[in-house]
Amino acid sequence: MVRQTLDPWGSDAVKDYSRLTQEFGIEPVLPLIPRFRRPSHHLSRGIDFGQRDLSRVLDAIDGNKPYAVMSGIKPTGDYHLGTKMTADDIIYFQSLSKKATAYYAIADVEAYSDNGISFKDSAKIAVRHVADILALGLDRDRAVVYFQSQEIRVMRLSSIFSRGVTNNMLKAIYGERQIGLYMAALVQAGDILMPQLPEFGGPKPVLVPVGADQDPHLRLARDLAAKYQRDFRFIPPASIYHRLMLSMTGDQKMSKRAEGSLLTLSDPPSLASKKVLSAFTGGRDTVDEQRRLGGRADICPVFELYKFHFALNDEHVERVYSECTTGTRLCGECKHEAAGLVKSFLSNHQKRRDSLMPDARELLEKSAKYLASAGR
Amino acid sequence: MVRQTLDPWGSDAVKDYSRLTQEFGIEPVLPLIPRFRRPSHHLSRGIDFGQRDLSRVLDAIDGNKPYAVMSGIKPTGDYHLGTKMTADDIIYFQSLSKKATAYYAIADVEAYSDNGISFKDSAKIAVRHVADILALGLDRDRAVVYFQSQEIRVMRLSSIFSRGVTNNMLKAIYGERQIGLYMAALVQAGDILMPQLPEFGGPKPVLVPVGADQDPHLRLARDLAAKYQRDFRFIPPASIYHRLMLSMTGDQKMSKRAEGSLLTLSDPPSLASKKVLSAFTGGRDTVDEQRRLGGRADICPVFELYKFHFALNDEHVERVYSECTTGTRLCGECKHEAAGLVKSFLSNHQKRRDSLMPDARELLEKSAKYLASAGR
Repeated sequence: MVRQTLDPWGSDAVKDYSRLTQEFGIEPVLPLIPRFRRPSHHLSRGIDFGQRDLSRVLDAIDGNKPYAVMSGIKPTGDYHLGTKMTADDIIYFQSLSKKATAYYAIADVEAYSDNGISFKDSAKIAVRHVADILALGLDRDRAVVYFQSQEIRVMRLSSIFSRGVTNNMLKAIYGERQIGLYMAALVQAGDILMPQLPEFGGPKPVLVPVGADQDPHLRLARDLAAKYQRDFRFIPPASIYHRLMLSMTGDQKMSKRAEGSLLTLSDPPSLASKKVLSAFTGGRDTVDEQRRLGGRADICPVFELYKFHFALNDEHVERVYSECTTGTRLCGECKHEAAGLVKSFLSNHQKRRDSLMPDARELLEKSAKYLASAGR
Repeated sequence: MVRQTLDPWGSDAVKDYSRLTQEFGIEPVLPLIPRFRRPSHHLSRGIDFGQRDLSRVLDAIDGNKPYAVMSGIKPTGDYHLGTKMTADDIIYFQSLSKKATAYYAIADVEAYSDNGISFKDSAKIAVRHVADILALGLDRDRAVVYFQSQEIRVMRLSSIFSRGVTNNMLKAIYGERQIGLYMAALVQAGDILMPQLPEFGGPKPVLVPVGADQDPHLRLARDLAAKYQRDFRFIPPASIYHRLMLSMTGDQKMSKRAEGSLLTLSDPPSLASKKVLSAFTGGRDTVDEQRRLGGRADICPVFELYKFHFALNDEHVERVYSECTTGTRLCGECKHEAAGLVKSFLSNHQKRRDSLMPDARELLEKSAKYLASAGR
């Protein structure tokens, strides 16, 4: 059996999720579902498939104890359906308890290094990203949003951590890489562990919702949490993993790195609709064949639009799936229905998002003030 | 010919300074000496032997243009005679123009990582270090002292730079190292280039006075200055190199890494005197031999006490040297004279240093405020 490697910086789709649990020690989510009073659509539809130490966070929820949900975004281009999935998880886990705080890191150093985007431009782009996540439902009263380039604690932790790792340890997790990517990984470990500093009420449980391909960063952060246990008393960070969306071309993960693969939250609804109508599908070569054999929903990015985002409820997903796979639903009609859902979601979201731009600016300012004063 | 490597983290003495100029492109200082109106004892005695781009700084002095002098210290243990040499150079080059600003970095992240010293303890130790350099003559009105762990600009630059280097580039400069040392080097490049940021009036010439073994850091900083020319308009940092003092045991460089090799500015004068009296010397096995062959001043740490620090003037150094090498001066009397000079220097210095502790605290606070407001 070839060992599956996870590349957090690549464009490959994850081919076999069961291997992740077998080889990397990611635990399945399924046995924990009964502990949720109202599971999110990610949970009920099997989109969130794996976790590490999620029970620590569930214990905090049950015990009315503080915990944090933490993730981040690189401020390049627009929020797309892949990044929306992480946002959906942040928002859901923030909503489960009044004792939850969401931390959202804006990776402007990476945006500069990888994409040549100046810090000034990152700051502009970030406002819209924050408005996007507010429009999706983030509770601004329990949210801290920050720029990596401004957050001395993250930088300090990454600098400390760089002395606590060996080249071999990093090679084992990420493969042979340039020092810059290793350093970016150490900065992300700083992001993940920062909410546990005393000035934020730590140590405390922290949940990191990410795509399955980001697990290497969690393994590193957990190794470091153990390594610096004596000085920082870190609790190993918990994580929950969602499946990666297929690109609209069906051949890789939806990613800003893959041109033409994206549906973004800023696409004009009519453009988004066109993208859906011309997407790759799991349909057969002829109508006859499709009627006879059924469609292949499992490799179909259009089916994923229903399942991951736009179906009204779980029954809707199941109906589309069974109609498709039994050959009673053809790709043309299916795409038209999906395009309609996408269009109506986007026009509502964009209206809400645009009206929340001042609120986004306010949240960024409030967070900056809070961070500057924390622990002083 | 074996290629000489420079190890900024090691304890080896540099064996052959002429090779540094041949192999690494360090230029001799000698041809520039006529440009100094009153050369320091480092210059007149050949202690500062090498430089890169020093003429840029001399041009700034002549043209009454702003420039910076920058170096740093790891806040572990006490200021010793090796660290005093860097301080002497900072102070001298700061004194040459009212347009000079001195930047002094306190490497508390390294002190934590290498020596397990907490940031709190570093802050305490640093106060005394700052009082030491004030007592040696630093002009507090044109000095900025900062902790690396607090200075977001340094951290941000190091993070950016980590993406602009390749593993091969670092290997070529430092040899094969763990990522933590590479990262420490990138942080030092951040220190060296920070004074050229716009909020500090940059780009402008910056002079880095360091021991000869620290040249790799300068090569890296100069490579990065060129690499980020387009975005930051950095001027390649200039440097001046002093010879390394021999340890009191005569076999390696004076360094905090080598126990028993040190004379520190906090040694009780009587202890310092004892250390001098029991030091290794360049003397011969018998008095007869010494009278006949003369002493070997060039390998003698006691002679270095005169030459590098405590001789009253250049003639004094020359007299000691010629008496020693012609056999008219024996080690016993020479050590007694040196011990007397050391004792009187230390008791004066310590009195001055202790009275300057409040001023040191004030300078640290003033610097912190200035850095927090710069560019805002």
